[in-house]
Amino acid sequence: MSTVDKQLEDVKATIDDEVPRHISVSDVTYEGPELVIYTRDPKEFAADGDLVRRLASKLRKRITVRPDPDVLTPPTRAEQAIRDLIPEEAGVTDLDFYEDTGEVVIQAQKPGVVIGRHGATLRDVTREVGWTPEVVRTPPIESSTVDNVRNFLKQEREDRRDILERVGRQIHRDPMSDDEYVRITTLGCCREVGRAAFILSTPDTRILIDCGDKPGAEGETPYLRIPEAFGAGANGIDAVVLTHAHLDHSALVPLLYEYGYDGPIYCTEPTRDLMGLLTLDYLDVAAKEGRSPPYGSEMVREAIKHTIPLEYGDVTDIAPDIKLTLHNAGHILGSSICHFHVGDGLYNVAFSGDIHYDDTRLFDGAVNDFPRVETLVLESTYGGKNDYQTDQDDSERKLKQIVQNAYDRDGKVLIPAFAVGRSQELMLVLEEAMREGDIPEMPIYLDGMIWEATAIHTTYPEYLRDSLRDRIFDADDNPFLADQFHHIEGGDDERADVADGDSCIVLSTSGMVTGGPIMSWLEHLGPDPDSTLTFVGYQASGTLGRRIQRGRDEIPINGDGNGRSDTVSLDMNVETVDGFSGHADRQGLENFVRTMNPRPEKILCVHGDESATQDLSSSLYHDMNLRTFAPQNLETFRFR
Amino acid sequence: MSTVDKQLEDVKATIDDEVPRHISVSDVTYEGPELVIYTRDPKEFAADGDLVRRLASKLRKRITVRPDPDVLTPPTRAEQAIRDLIPEEAGVTDLDFYEDTGEVVIQAQKPGVVIGRHGATLRDVTREVGWTPEVVRTPPIESSTVDNVRNFLKQEREDRRDILERVGRQIHRDPMSDDEYVRITTLGCCREVGRAAFILSTPDTRILIDCGDKPGAEGETPYLRIPEAFGAGANGIDAVVLTHAHLDHSALVPLLYEYGYDGPIYCTEPTRDLMGLLTLDYLDVAAKEGRSPPYGSEMVREAIKHTIPLEYGDVTDIAPDIKLTLHNAGHILGSSICHFHVGDGLYNVAFSGDIHYDDTRLFDGAVNDFPRVETLVLESTYGGKNDYQTDQDDSERKLKQIVQNAYDRDGKVLIPAFAVGRSQELMLVLEEAMREGDIPEMPIYLDGMIWEATAIHTTYPEYLRDSLRDRIFDADDNPFLADQFHHIEGGDDERADVADGDSCIVLSTSGMVTGGPIMSWLEHLGPDPDSTLTFVGYQASGTLGRRIQRGRDEIPINGDGNGRSDTVSLDMNVETVDGFSGHADRQGLENFVRTMNPRPEKILCVHGDESATQDLSSSLYHDMNLRTFAPQNLETFRFR
Repeated sequence: MSTVDKQLEDVKATIDDEVPRHISVSDVTYEGPELVIYTRDPKEFAADGDLVRRLASKLRKRITVRPDPDVLTPPTRAEQAIRDLIPEEAGVTDLDFYEDTGEVVIQAQKPGVVIGRHGATLRDVTREVGWTPEVVRTPPIESSTVDNVRNFLKQEREDRRDILERVGRQIHRDPMSDDEYVRITTLGCCREVGRAAFILSTPDTRILIDCGDKPGAEGETPYLRIPEAFGAGANGIDAVVLTHAHLDHSALVPLLYEYGYDGPIYCTEPTRDLMGLLTLDYLDVAAKEGRSPPYGSEMVREAIKHTIPLEYGDVTDIAPDIKLTLHNAGHILGSSICHFHVGDGLYNVAFSGDIHYDDTRLFDGAVNDFPRVETLVLESTYGGKNDYQTDQDDSERKLKQIVQNAYDRDGKVLIPAFAVGRSQELMLVLEEAMREGDIPEMPIYLDGMIWEATAIHTTYPEYLRDSLRDRIFDADDNPFLADQFHHIEGGDDERADVADGDSCIVLSTSGMVTGGPIMSWLEHLGPDPDSTLTFVGYQASGTLGRRIQRGRDEIPINGDGNGRSDTVSLDMNVETVDGFSGHADRQGLENFVRTMNPRPEKILCVHGDESATQDLSSSLYHDMNLRTFAPQNLETFRFR
Repeated sequence: MSTVDKQLEDVKATIDDEVPRHISVSDVTYEGPELVIYTRDPKEFAADGDLVRRLASKLRKRITVRPDPDVLTPPTRAEQAIRDLIPEEAGVTDLDFYEDTGEVVIQAQKPGVVIGRHGATLRDVTREVGWTPEVVRTPPIESSTVDNVRNFLKQEREDRRDILERVGRQIHRDPMSDDEYVRITTLGCCREVGRAAFILSTPDTRILIDCGDKPGAEGETPYLRIPEAFGAGANGIDAVVLTHAHLDHSALVPLLYEYGYDGPIYCTEPTRDLMGLLTLDYLDVAAKEGRSPPYGSEMVREAIKHTIPLEYGDVTDIAPDIKLTLHNAGHILGSSICHFHVGDGLYNVAFSGDIHYDDTRLFDGAVNDFPRVETLVLESTYGGKNDYQTDQDDSERKLKQIVQNAYDRDGKVLIPAFAVGRSQELMLVLEEAMREGDIPEMPIYLDGMIWEATAIHTTYPEYLRDSLRDRIFDADDNPFLADQFHHIEGGDDERADVADGDSCIVLSTSGMVTGGPIMSWLEHLGPDPDSTLTFVGYQASGTLGRRIQRGRDEIPINGDGNGRSDTVSLDMNVETVDGFSGHADRQGLENFVRTMNPRPEKILCVHGDESATQDLSSSLYHDMNLRTFAPQNLETFRFR
């Protein structure tokens, strides 16, 4: 008998002891990090509201209870019973029954109403029909990404069960080694911005954190081929953890499946969906630019199929000796600081991913309160000694002035923006400014994936700030549905029309002017001296965005669609409004560390230009007396 | 056609161009780092004394010329011709003909006479009989190790040819990667003494430098299972380089073959033979102590079969992007500083192994003059701020005083010593002292492998100091053959007799009192207050030697040979004479770096207790303004 099976026998014995005689337990299995208990008496299980909590605390595992397939009410009869139980105002839009797991997925406009007070309605459902309900929100703005992901996962349910069972057995295997150590190997994003990737390793386990591309330097991918990463075989890696969906963190995650990896990805649910959206677009852009994409779209589906979504604050076993907890990072939807607890109290490491320290219109500021952290791996995008940004009030004033000036000249404002994050923040700023009469009403065109990314935001309002969440659920007050927002769907003809028309604002991807529809907009608007190109986010070294900021006044274009290369002169005004960055500025980074609880012992300053990481490292050392480092790529640090 | 075959075609074309028409070239192959040219005209090849040199310089490879088997004089006839050609005083003891390679191995007491002026006699041999002569020295003291190694290699010649051809193809393959980097990963001997092991890696190549055990801590082996080492598969390693034969550097080298490694080991010839001697003894000691040895003796044979011996100063390709050169380290017979030249001028790293900076009776001091070195990995055994040793003159005076005092009390002097290195140094000191009348004549008993190790020293006199070399070849003056030396061959009965007898000196292994015959000697002599236990070498933390130095006065013994554990009280005097160490002291280490040419940019201080490595690192940084580190095990440093 394998050690996992042996361990599972022990777990079953404990469950048999704890569960009252009149409730049957027909099977116990692992599914990913969860322990699943099958029972022929789901109603009785549900009736004892405290039983699952007691078992979870006793076994120190996350527990799901499922009805034995024999005792389920047939779906047609169950559907009627469920619709009767759930109040009308919940707005149930869909019910899906899965006989293999005994789950019914209820899609509703108001999931809270479906759940009921402390889960009372859900317990009623189980008691009545035997099925285990799972509730998901009907997006208030239809998102094809969310639809596609949900449909795909529905269709791949059986495969997914196999994956989860395999992952579960991996997680709950016995540790093999008597050694103890904790190491971090840097595979990318050290002394540079882009290609984020780290290995966290112990004698038993290797975790890959992020796997991104490098904007403006296509060839420079993370060092995945070294033996510490995939050189030792793709399944030397136990798990992938994704801090957030931006491509410099996620673009090469699907590539791992091309390499033969078949393990799990842990991230938040919105990160999963946004990763799907952004990586498919990444392939699309590569194809359009005549580059051969590093993987096919089926690898994106593999990645989604292997994703195990976690919520902020859930402490989850992801390996025999590692527990992962995600915390809000304040950067984009679903962005996480990833906290790893290694061994039984041995060591704690937090990877910041990208963070925003202060609250924004969209998100609460990054969490910096942890049970324990000895080492922090900290982004340093704005870690340079002069990287202080104006605060958002001033930035908003400046942006409004830019809009007003362009309007006064009959010009337009073109804003390159990441589809995810900065675009929605700007939408909220501009919508409010027009509503309050600070700037004239004019159309705001959203190009690239901005519309779709906005729809995904409205699907996961629990990841947004409270006040915004409430507005989203009032259709009349949903700021993202304001009249001035227009989704560019007509391609280049529509862009040409808009460019020939009246004053307006255009938000378009890519955020660093490395491709995508922003290139067309520059072709149309570049020569117009009355219009203004406005940067609102970080422009990495090597990107066209950075070069324009530095004074470049010619833009390469493919004018006739036949691949003929040409240039257009850039006569637009060029402005930078720096308070909208999704990144903490130098002050924010220092505040994050200064107010961090507990104070870490060591900090690795990564994800910033060489001077930024070294400045930040040296300041944190001198001002706060911490051991700090500005690693290079391909180094390994040992902590225990 | 593989890239290696393609490259070999180019090499053949160059050779055809260079070699005059009247000399045929029948085949060209790689054998390890050498390029072998077969010719039907070996006499003409030999006649043009400059041709091989011209080819070597043109092709930038080491070249060996062999006769095509068809043109060889039959061995019986050839033997007579060779014996006629070589002067009588050469003392030829053996001739072996190898038809597969056309080589004849000539074993002689005076190899120089066989070789003749600038190789004239050897060229005569080839011209006369076609065979390619190789000359080896007949050991002046018979060594069973040397005999066994030579016989074994003779017997395994065909296997060895296959190995060399495979290694040759590996070395001369084309580099695969466009990346450039140079990294060192620490697998052991960081902030500790013992289990030396490092990985030097580039995108194309991984070299393992040393693979030792840790005296006094059996379980603590180098971290071979991590992916950077053997975790990625045993043949992820391209080559093993061995600095010297002491077990804390060599003990686990044969284990690599148990793990499936089948690549080459580079070291000097005496290091190969001493490794054979010491690792077989290591297995023997483990068995006697009831521990299960980590590998069988057949793995020692594998290691010997895979060894490619190099001489000091030979620049040798060991991978497509790495050249290795060994330099005298002054520590023990054949000990080397290993210098790696990476890429085409990209980077240079030297691993000191263990070094002795000053000249000793046996060896010249360590070489510290290199074409280029950017990073030095430096031993720090005596790197602590108080680790200054008395100089050898004072130490010799002190040792002689100890001997005199013991003699005056009718006591004995027991010296635990490494079989290899310190024992021979002490033999020279004691022999001289008795010859010159500084101490009374008395027997000196050599126990453990000291006699055999001494025989190996006399086999390779070119690794010893000039003056000593000359004495060894004069049988009447060979200090190691002096009358007072007695080889203990009669086991414990003989030891008991010696212990009951008159004053004498005993040199016995192991040098750190971790096992071996020294344990019996302690049992016999431990209770004798008139005798003196004298430490002359470094005692690592955790060893019984260290504990006795610190005042421990009870010794565990297995008195009745039935495994019954018991103790004996230690009433002997305990003395330490520290000037005989094979290691540079703190002053020697500083002098080594201060006078090093060129001065390195970075130094990793390894192979010393935590405080020693940190003291040395911090002093070298402050005094010489170098970037210094005191790494932990399991870290990776990137240099380019």
